[in-house]
Amino acid sequence: MTYREIWHEIHIHSTPRKVYQALTDVEKLAGWWTTDTRGESTVGGKLEFWFSGHLAAEMVVAELTTDSLVRWRVTERGIADWIDTEISFDISRGRKKTILHLRHSKWREEAAMFPECSMHWAIFLLSLKEFVEMGRGRPHPYDMPVNI
Amino acid sequence: MTYREIWHEIHIHSTPRKVYQALTDVEKLAGWWTTDTRGESTVGGKLEFWFSGHLAAEMVVAELTTDSLVRWRVTERGIADWIDTEISFDISRGRKKTILHLRHSKWREEAAMFPECSMHWAIFLLSLKEFVEMGRGRPHPYDMPVNI
Repeated sequence: MTYREIWHEIHIHSTPRKVYQALTDVEKLAGWWTTDTRGESTVGGKLEFWFSGHLAAEMVVAELTTDSLVRWRVTERGIADWIDTEISFDISRGRKKTILHLRHSKWREEAAMFPECSMHWAIFLLSLKEFVEMGRGRPHPYDMPVNI
Repeated sequence: MTYREIWHEIHIHSTPRKVYQALTDVEKLAGWWTTDTRGESTVGGKLEFWFSGHLAAEMVVAELTTDSLVRWRVTERGIADWIDTEISFDISRGRKKTILHLRHSKWREEAAMFPECSMHWAIFLLSLKEFVEMGRGRPHPYDMPVNI
């Protein structure tokens, strides 16, 4: 079985700590991804990301390493193409900036939403960057409407 | 040998013709990707994309199907990670919009620039969308500085 993977890198002018917090504090997740974020960011806990009243994905928090790594696994609740895929955020310190790698892996070859989600992840990473650097992101429903 | 692929989808509120022109007219390419674009967009012809005085990539135009498909192959001139990779733009008509798929394929597994370029392609597709929809893109050196 071959899988596809989305893999983006973005640089954020802030500390690894602030980036880690934006990825692990439910209120902060709601500040850059979707305003309707629910659940608990603890290992084994579940997070829900709702878009306009639809549950896009429920994630189990698989791994948390302070200021360095966040890893989620998508459960059977939510968009079919995302089920059993994995999302990781790898945080590292660069020169005067923080380097963030998003990897959304284990996409099945036939998953039709792959290219659209690849584009959307980039847009939400730009939102995350703005949230961390300037205190204000563009979470859904305030996100850039590229696919309407 | 396993290869990686960047694959983004974006929707553009315009005609397939306008999107095709933005991908095949050298002056229009300079309006959304990099202001210093040179060469000839004919099958077998070569295009050069310069960023701040550096040749990022020289492409051979491998295929052109009017209003539908553009395919380039990167030559040995330019960034090492891009050599022999392939780029395709697939254009199709949606409801009241044009659907564009960018695929940048045949990346070697060890190519370190992959995640950074994945992010940059998304940013330049947003620039292309603005260029086609509103007549003004954000080509380099006017692009969003996400990786500095």
